[in-house]
Amino acid sequence: MKKSRLYTPGPTPVPPQATLAMAQPIDYHRGEAASAVVRRCADALKTVFQTSSEVAILTSSGTGAMEAAVVNLLSAGDKVVVVESGKFGERWGEIADAYALDVVRIAVEWGESVGPAAVERELNRHADVRAVFATLCETSTGALHDIRALGELARCADALLVVDAVSALGADEMRMDEWAVDALVSCSQKGLMTPPGLAFLALGPRAVEASSSAALPKFYFDYGKYMANLAKDTTPYTPAISLLYGLDVALDSMMGEGIDAIYARHARIGRATREGVKATGLSMFPRVPANTLTSVRLPDTLDGKALLRDLRATHGMVFAGGQAHLAGRIVRIAHLGWMDDYDALVAVAALERGLAGMGYPVAIGSAVQAAQVALAT
Amino acid sequence: MKKSRLYTPGPTPVPPQATLAMAQPIDYHRGEAASAVVRRCADALKTVFQTSSEVAILTSSGTGAMEAAVVNLLSAGDKVVVVESGKFGERWGEIADAYALDVVRIAVEWGESVGPAAVERELNRHADVRAVFATLCETSTGALHDIRALGELARCADALLVVDAVSALGADEMRMDEWAVDALVSCSQKGLMTPPGLAFLALGPRAVEASSSAALPKFYFDYGKYMANLAKDTTPYTPAISLLYGLDVALDSMMGEGIDAIYARHARIGRATREGVKATGLSMFPRVPANTLTSVRLPDTLDGKALLRDLRATHGMVFAGGQAHLAGRIVRIAHLGWMDDYDALVAVAALERGLAGMGYPVAIGSAVQAAQVALAT
Repeated sequence: MKKSRLYTPGPTPVPPQATLAMAQPIDYHRGEAASAVVRRCADALKTVFQTSSEVAILTSSGTGAMEAAVVNLLSAGDKVVVVESGKFGERWGEIADAYALDVVRIAVEWGESVGPAAVERELNRHADVRAVFATLCETSTGALHDIRALGELARCADALLVVDAVSALGADEMRMDEWAVDALVSCSQKGLMTPPGLAFLALGPRAVEASSSAALPKFYFDYGKYMANLAKDTTPYTPAISLLYGLDVALDSMMGEGIDAIYARHARIGRATREGVKATGLSMFPRVPANTLTSVRLPDTLDGKALLRDLRATHGMVFAGGQAHLAGRIVRIAHLGWMDDYDALVAVAALERGLAGMGYPVAIGSAVQAAQVALAT
Repeated sequence: MKKSRLYTPGPTPVPPQATLAMAQPIDYHRGEAASAVVRRCADALKTVFQTSSEVAILTSSGTGAMEAAVVNLLSAGDKVVVVESGKFGERWGEIADAYALDVVRIAVEWGESVGPAAVERELNRHADVRAVFATLCETSTGALHDIRALGELARCADALLVVDAVSALGADEMRMDEWAVDALVSCSQKGLMTPPGLAFLALGPRAVEASSSAALPKFYFDYGKYMANLAKDTTPYTPAISLLYGLDVALDSMMGEGIDAIYARHARIGRATREGVKATGLSMFPRVPANTLTSVRLPDTLDGKALLRDLRATHGMVFAGGQAHLAGRIVRIAHLGWMDDYDALVAVAALERGLAGMGYPVAIGSAVQAAQVALAT
């Protein structure tokens, strides 16, 4: 018998009740039942986004929603500040380049979180910045960013703050309206416990105003069309209707738990995972780790790719490795979405045994003990 | 007990074995199992598209793939000819407008199919046409287009032929390479028997060459990124992995049946449906009906919307109505994808009873008899 457990930072496991909902016979997306699902999802998403604004539901990956934010808010040549602290921050920059924006990059070492002072400096240097692009949890490193601080700075500079909360939404705290975030992007396959295929874009009032004069070309990602259709509880194009059924069930479960309880659960299992890692003698890769995933820095003497292969083959554990220059140098353990205390404990237990199997000197049991203490207190 | 049957021209019913495949636990999209699925789907899609070119797999609705065709082939100001014979032909025009192309429209009355001479005239009038945009089956009317004839004309004029085969792929005959189609677009939720959420774009050699100089801005829909990743059996962004599992099973079933047998099955059930409709005394709305769906022209005295409501409420039949100015004036019965002779017979039977229920004078049994004869001979 072999069990497989998925701990990648997207896709994440899907609860069986959502899987069952997606196995229903396909229904016509313009019928009453589908409209009720669209409306319920849109309402619950407002709570997850912590916003009073409507949330557009796109059929695409999270990258599609990132592009939607860019093309709906800006015009060619607009100056923007992009915080690049990893692969996904860099993606904001790549999209901005593709649309010929005037990009001011803030290059942050991978694993670091941007200092608000660095953003303030660029905003002071460039009076004409239209938007600041940032990332809540940089999935490639596991670093958390102080979005609230960036929100204040952007508001003072009369720039829009656009945030990628793809991996962290429904895991790390994220309060769109309270933190003055103007545009927030996420997708289905992370904290929202649904398979990949749906993405979300919420625009606050300042962003909606900006969208009316944004001249970048767009069609499929045109925010206005999504809003006009959402007002009628539908979508402009055929949505991934089976995934919407699953999302509806997953969001219902999230509404039952409550957003603050969701943040607290992820904080608890994130802390417990970190305590477990520390007990092995290893350290976290990011200076400010998110609760979404734990990135573990591996010793130079350890073959990180072999460790991942062994964890998958021998222990059935699917962790993620490092991306780009971090390949083989870090292990990323996601504990977001449909994850509880015991899932976190199991991940730590497997890491400990995997490390021991690679000859790394670890006192077997010390990591699970430390994690267990953190979970129970 | 109430059974519901879905006859809309997308989404279409999903076979249970595909549903079961999609109910598997979610797997990491960068793992070996996912790569094998991507490769199998990409290979089978080449057969469905009848092309030796690679087929890009996008996570979006079909409209996303239409936009992908536009942005990957053209530059702002390029002159294009758009055949508009219904809602989806008009969508080509809307996308072209959104990207500031120089659009020459051929307006065809809804229900008609464009005459090749009309396209030839515009190609002769405008020597600098870069691309012709057409539709295999115009889903809003049920009209089939002579793509082979347009392929010859476009090739002679050194223009690219771009075809929307969204609803008709895997139903009506469509031979991309043989018919000189340069770019072909489709999606998962029609003939391919999979829920909505995946879309496909194949570019032939001339289109690939054009894509290297196409200057329209793009990121999520950048064909080059999909090809670079497909060469490694993966996708540039997280795909709708559960839908890919389903598509893999659906395509396997299509490969087992064979593309010519699929065309023949749809031709048979399309003809039988039309014979059934004729036996009620009604006529087809399009002059050249596709085998993908049958559009029935309703008498002016009959309340088409009430008929649809009754068919759904009393008979569990989900047919589609008319779009735009055709609302209430036509009924659209799709018989594509996971549909056999008996599904077609049942649709005709329900139409007959629905019409009788609305007071329309129909000899009950005559339509099913006519359909049955057509099916059995």
